[in-house]
Amino acid sequence: MKLTSFGEKFTRKSGILELMDDLGNAVAGQGRVCMLGGGNPAIIPEIQAVWNRCLSELIQDGSGLEEALSSYDTPQGKQSFLESLSGMLKNSFGWNIGPENIAITNGSQSAFFILLNLFGGTDASGVKKKVLFPLCPEYIGYADQGLEPDIFTTCPASIEILDDFLFKYHVDFSSLKVGDDVGAICISRPTNPTGNVISDEEVRQLSSLAEDAGVPLIIDNAYGSPFPGIIFEEVKPFWNENTILSMSLSKIGLPSVRTGIIIGRPEIIKAVSSCNAIISLANGTIGQVLTESLFQSGEILDISKNIVRPFYNRKSIQAQNWVKAYMPVSADYRVHKSEGAIFLWIWFRNLKISSRELYENLKKRKVIVVPGEYFFFGLDQDWEHSKQCIRLNYSQSADLVEEGIRILAEEVDKALRQ
Amino acid sequence: MKLTSFGEKFTRKSGILELMDDLGNAVAGQGRVCMLGGGNPAIIPEIQAVWNRCLSELIQDGSGLEEALSSYDTPQGKQSFLESLSGMLKNSFGWNIGPENIAITNGSQSAFFILLNLFGGTDASGVKKKVLFPLCPEYIGYADQGLEPDIFTTCPASIEILDDFLFKYHVDFSSLKVGDDVGAICISRPTNPTGNVISDEEVRQLSSLAEDAGVPLIIDNAYGSPFPGIIFEEVKPFWNENTILSMSLSKIGLPSVRTGIIIGRPEIIKAVSSCNAIISLANGTIGQVLTESLFQSGEILDISKNIVRPFYNRKSIQAQNWVKAYMPVSADYRVHKSEGAIFLWIWFRNLKISSRELYENLKKRKVIVVPGEYFFFGLDQDWEHSKQCIRLNYSQSADLVEEGIRILAEEVDKALRQ
Repeated sequence: MKLTSFGEKFTRKSGILELMDDLGNAVAGQGRVCMLGGGNPAIIPEIQAVWNRCLSELIQDGSGLEEALSSYDTPQGKQSFLESLSGMLKNSFGWNIGPENIAITNGSQSAFFILLNLFGGTDASGVKKKVLFPLCPEYIGYADQGLEPDIFTTCPASIEILDDFLFKYHVDFSSLKVGDDVGAICISRPTNPTGNVISDEEVRQLSSLAEDAGVPLIIDNAYGSPFPGIIFEEVKPFWNENTILSMSLSKIGLPSVRTGIIIGRPEIIKAVSSCNAIISLANGTIGQVLTESLFQSGEILDISKNIVRPFYNRKSIQAQNWVKAYMPVSADYRVHKSEGAIFLWIWFRNLKISSRELYENLKKRKVIVVPGEYFFFGLDQDWEHSKQCIRLNYSQSADLVEEGIRILAEEVDKALRQ
Repeated sequence: MKLTSFGEKFTRKSGILELMDDLGNAVAGQGRVCMLGGGNPAIIPEIQAVWNRCLSELIQDGSGLEEALSSYDTPQGKQSFLESLSGMLKNSFGWNIGPENIAITNGSQSAFFILLNLFGGTDASGVKKKVLFPLCPEYIGYADQGLEPDIFTTCPASIEILDDFLFKYHVDFSSLKVGDDVGAICISRPTNPTGNVISDEEVRQLSSLAEDAGVPLIIDNAYGSPFPGIIFEEVKPFWNENTILSMSLSKIGLPSVRTGIIIGRPEIIKAVSSCNAIISLANGTIGQVLTESLFQSGEILDISKNIVRPFYNRKSIQAQNWVKAYMPVSADYRVHKSEGAIFLWIWFRNLKISSRELYENLKKRKVIVVPGEYFFFGLDQDWEHSKQCIRLNYSQSADLVEEGIRILAEEVDKALRQ
């Protein structure tokens, strides 16, 4: 099969694809697997009951069913959904936005494929622009999305050691340079993989750096506030005219309806809609139809605050307690302070093996995690730290998470004795 | 806003985007609009009842609901759906395929974004490959999908004049050359915009041309056999190891679940899955969950043959009768023989205005069609015929289609008298 350069780049054995094969094969295998690798959110019974109720209403209301299944949406999204969502954001946070500030995409990943390539790559005058991730490590899913090579640049986080086996990353503003070649600045908040939440003050600083450089600040808020609310710090949702905010229905419990939400200036929204039209024609509608009344009534905020957030907060604390209970202290391990998202990010400072080898050893014992090194893309320097961390999804069932952490501790112990 | 070259290409006022704006504005306007422009399929009550039944089953079966909404699919698709579909195709048509021969995409348009750029564009050795469309006119949706400029080449159809105000396009094999720069051959069957169906013999010829050139033959079967069955000619579904067959759930009545289906060799499927993972992470699941039992039982074939096909056949004949009843014979018009798909393609040989001007005049009277000239992309020569045709969606409600055709006839009459 003879492929174009696009084809070769998008199909070669990159880290993420290799890993996905592994995950697939692990699941396909026989027996019990502790699947703490992927990004699937939890199944929360109270939330499932909400979808069940919304679907039943859809069936009773014939025209709702028609809209959800049988009519193409526009490339921007469903007008009534855009109105409900912008209304809620305007009323709750005072943002000066309307439906013209929102575009829907077939999931957050598709939104970033579009955004990262709108602002990273060679422009008409031949200048190559890069997207700057000011805090490394960052989400693995961005790493392979550039149509051109090397469109990402990043800056190692500074590390603060905390009590109680914890640590925390910060944006290292002292070494952060926004060069002329930067086309956009991008952060996730809470950050996948680490659960770090950039503070309101750090966001303001990044926002003014972006404004000074004349480039947008992109914030991936897939886990954040006001929905789904998997954020345990008291921070304010942030948007201004120079910000592109990305949200999603995935982590509120609807990953397979593929509904990404972009909030930005009308010209940004037009650009995203145009890309949608050419790449996807139209967006999936069911996520929008299913949740529209929740945005209209504001129920989505209650669900996020009173069901989703406490659920994950409990799960996170429980998982951290298991780590403390099982992990050998001699590993000199640290867990990133869990401020949001659905992962524990564990840093091992004493192991004689890399996180990749630890991952392989765990896979043999049917525990699937993600080795941290994939999250350090865009770095132009070696960083030993990048081979010392793993990501673990704590949102799965309690017995699997506990068993996975117990086996992880055993493998860490084995590695220490090598 | 400073964009990359990708950004400029994908957001500039191309034909299709300008048109979409028009369509959007026309709909947003006051009063009754004869919307015969877009590609939305009909709402068929018997089919809506099927979706209603399938959705109710989903709600009753809790785990079905969970699968449909709350768990990420793999980038290839849902294993049980891939098994049901490949089983049906194997048993019904004897194709030597399994789940490893099928990948799901977020709609057919996303599938073509991937496929056209896998095979059209510069390869690693610096050679620029083109996708050859052997029959021009072709589907407008492909026109802007190339990441590189000028990756399409095409060949004007030969025209056969038929009785009863009809005509038909054929592949002009005498002038069709498959040069060294061709990376794939691509057809749609039935063809959007014209309703033409390439014969079994023509498909065989194209297949061996592709095989001789060592490139795949891509067949877009979004309207075709065995499902949704909007095809009025007796032709055989076609697939072999050198063919990439694209299917869709849109025209069976599920456009907004965005479910495209690619059937090909395992290496092709792996490539499409990889692109899915990077561009979209995962596919929408609800279309697969909703229809899986219909593939399992074969009911999808009955629905296609006994409900969908006769419905559209009646609609097509009715629309053609209105054209004959209203259209001035002095326009020397011809309708493309309606062999499938949901459009009438009308050729006006005597008008003093272009199809674009006719479109503008119709828009003023709240009748939306698509001017034909957008469907002639990739041509390297002028062709007067390209400004003489319009596409009209006949699947909408009878009164709107009749009124639209009546107003079209009046505008044609006006143009003749200019």
